[in-house]
Amino acid sequence: MSVTAALDALSALLGDRLSRAKADLDAHGRSESHFPTTPPDAVAYPESTDEVAALVRICAAARCPVIGWGAGTSLEGHALAVRGGVAVDFSRMAALLEVAPEDMVARVQPGMTREALNTELRATGLFFPVDPGANASLGGMASTRASGTTAVRYGTMRDNVAALEVVTASGEVIRTGTRARKSSAGYDLTGLFVGAEGTLGLITELTLRLQGQPEAISAAVCAFADIGAAVDAVVETMQSGVPMARIEFLDAASVAAVNAHAKADFPRTPHLFVEFHGSEAGVAEQAARFAEIAAEHGARGLERAHRPEERNRLWQMRHHAYWAILASRPGARAIVTDVCVPLSRLAEAVAATQADIDAAGLAAPILGHVGDGNFHAILLLDGSDAERRAAERVSRAMVERALEIGGTATGEHGIGIGKLGYMEAEHGAAGWGMMGALKAALDPHDIMNPGKLVPPRQAGRPNPR
Amino acid sequence: MSVTAALDALSALLGDRLSRAKADLDAHGRSESHFPTTPPDAVAYPESTDEVAALVRICAAARCPVIGWGAGTSLEGHALAVRGGVAVDFSRMAALLEVAPEDMVARVQPGMTREALNTELRATGLFFPVDPGANASLGGMASTRASGTTAVRYGTMRDNVAALEVVTASGEVIRTGTRARKSSAGYDLTGLFVGAEGTLGLITELTLRLQGQPEAISAAVCAFADIGAAVDAVVETMQSGVPMARIEFLDAASVAAVNAHAKADFPRTPHLFVEFHGSEAGVAEQAARFAEIAAEHGARGLERAHRPEERNRLWQMRHHAYWAILASRPGARAIVTDVCVPLSRLAEAVAATQADIDAAGLAAPILGHVGDGNFHAILLLDGSDAERRAAERVSRAMVERALEIGGTATGEHGIGIGKLGYMEAEHGAAGWGMMGALKAALDPHDIMNPGKLVPPRQAGRPNPR
Repeated sequence: MSVTAALDALSALLGDRLSRAKADLDAHGRSESHFPTTPPDAVAYPESTDEVAALVRICAAARCPVIGWGAGTSLEGHALAVRGGVAVDFSRMAALLEVAPEDMVARVQPGMTREALNTELRATGLFFPVDPGANASLGGMASTRASGTTAVRYGTMRDNVAALEVVTASGEVIRTGTRARKSSAGYDLTGLFVGAEGTLGLITELTLRLQGQPEAISAAVCAFADIGAAVDAVVETMQSGVPMARIEFLDAASVAAVNAHAKADFPRTPHLFVEFHGSEAGVAEQAARFAEIAAEHGARGLERAHRPEERNRLWQMRHHAYWAILASRPGARAIVTDVCVPLSRLAEAVAATQADIDAAGLAAPILGHVGDGNFHAILLLDGSDAERRAAERVSRAMVERALEIGGTATGEHGIGIGKLGYMEAEHGAAGWGMMGALKAALDPHDIMNPGKLVPPRQAGRPNPR
Repeated sequence: MSVTAALDALSALLGDRLSRAKADLDAHGRSESHFPTTPPDAVAYPESTDEVAALVRICAAARCPVIGWGAGTSLEGHALAVRGGVAVDFSRMAALLEVAPEDMVARVQPGMTREALNTELRATGLFFPVDPGANASLGGMASTRASGTTAVRYGTMRDNVAALEVVTASGEVIRTGTRARKSSAGYDLTGLFVGAEGTLGLITELTLRLQGQPEAISAAVCAFADIGAAVDAVVETMQSGVPMARIEFLDAASVAAVNAHAKADFPRTPHLFVEFHGSEAGVAEQAARFAEIAAEHGARGLERAHRPEERNRLWQMRHHAYWAILASRPGARAIVTDVCVPLSRLAEAVAATQADIDAAGLAAPILGHVGDGNFHAILLLDGSDAERRAAERVSRAMVERALEIGGTATGEHGIGIGKLGYMEAEHGAAGWGMMGALKAALDPHDIMNPGKLVPPRQAGRPNPR
């Protein structure tokens, strides 16, 4: 079947839920990042797993690429249609299917966003903890192995997806995992699809682990003289076993941007924004222990935010820091970097990144989920080639340093097209080759989000199946 | 190359560290379970990753099976040489390679046991939490995705292995994962090898996540009128968010066996053995909350064990419960079952199992890691065919019920040869078939622990690579 015939067949399957309107194609060819717009040939809006399976079977017959689309918030061009094909937009598969409070799980469709899920859960006493900042779709969050501010306590999507329903590259429907809390029954297929960026199949349903809303929550902010003191406080806090719910670093430039954007007046020095979850007594104890460690590192102006509205304001400021930073340089675009390093090397990695930024003369606030060793520089670009090249050099140096000191090229944003060039360095030729072999086994015709994550398939190499 | 030629080449490689002595073969053909002895053709004792890689290359050339061997404590016949071949005994690769306290990880060789690791860690203030009871090797624990009493708090091997070094089926050496706390860089190869039971490659090094030794630890025991009351107390405790470090169920028959074996005098009713980890205040708060919930379910005689020697005695009794149960019927062998169900269905699953045991007239104490919904019946057998058949029926009913109510055929023991017959029912033909495709991609000649975990390779089907 030709791709044209496949699109005709998809039109017959989906009616006006297969769109070829230019505005639709463009909207699904953009990313939140600096990559050029790369539209698909069509956008499909399926309403059921059966429709997704039928769609994939049609595309498989035509060797037509199939690219999942959630909320479009990924940062490395994950959903760009680099080889054309059909974007599968899950906005019509966004329902909460079931909440099972006794088992502390929810079943959702992939297009549901994390904020929509937590709104629905509000009355149950439960919540879904993974919080990447953006109001991403849960299917997309699973596919990129997202994490964010709360991963330090509750883990990433790797830890919070119990089971999946997946449409495979041949259009079969499989279920991975169960709602039991653990299993030793064979390969961890759930874990294989989480973080696979849609290259092995399309997630059509997720069973997510929920957490009980803590009895008490308390947040706090404190200022440090310099980056080193702030990061040392983080490392010591983590090592002391305080079960931090959030521990976020913002450098002086980030704080300045937040101040301007949110009409706040934090001193213009590095800060930690932290949160504690637990019983009343537990939270008080954690906060006291953290205050003690922070004070040892010269923290000043420790302010507790007890009331929900104060806390919400704080985390809104943190979540909007990216927009605040963008707004700090009107008209700028940004390269958002993302590395994760061993905690023992965090201070040195952040300091070296700061030195690189200074040496390049760039505006690039640094902030991150430092309890996990994960940080970002937001490299602001005015559009000149010189600045772009300088920013790319800083970004590359961040990744190379992270790999050198035992970390990873991406803590939470994923590979997409932006980090593909680092995969061999991180995993070795044999390790990355193994990913290619897994992809070839599960997607022999290379139709699932092709051009991403694995090594390019060698032309003329016999198809492995 | 013929298998005979391969064994000659291995002798040349390893000298007298390739053994063909009958006693050695028999020792590596036995399991802790009821399966018949199935010896390999030879036992290799490599001393380095390079030797393992060379060994696998020789075996690959001869299509000779390669089976990893740790401490021989697995319960489903994982390491039985069902197609002959070479058992790779890791007892000479049992070193602690590095402790990195700041990153809270340790690098170990696969033959090191968990008790040896924790002995070495004692002075560091850190410990490795996964505790399956047996003093298993850490490579074996990773390969079976082991868990045990502390998984309810600290997770299973899935959660506690940060990175691996693996010798692949072609004798290449790969490294998966990093020592950063999280990563989004491609497929989770670490997660794929954890639980793969040696069917995809041999683990030659592990980077394990460590935990800080809690400031305070307290254990407790209490008795319940019946199974239902005990299990209901567990479910409510878990839902209330008390961060239990251990919460173990023993039925009346298990308690009787423990009493006889350890000269204890617990009342002969169902019990919970529990443990709390945290700060002094935190442990007191957790214990009070648990006591309250337990009391609501009629718990009696709640006894706290504060001193280390009291606690150690308690957990030694729990860990030796299997031997106590075996000893309760002199000369008996046992089928140890293992299912894991959603917490919401735990009470009904345990009750139905008890009813099946009673109806069959078997002696079969029930105990388990009930905070995870994971429980075992120890089916005692006198050797008669009738009893074996009855036990097999009970065992099968346990698994079928677990699958029916959304659980898994094995919570922690794994598949080996004992649970192979349930894989298709648990994962569906397509899901289990996907496991077969992954295996074929990474081990095209089917030499890594063949005959386990995946569907039998179809004779005459062209080799997928």
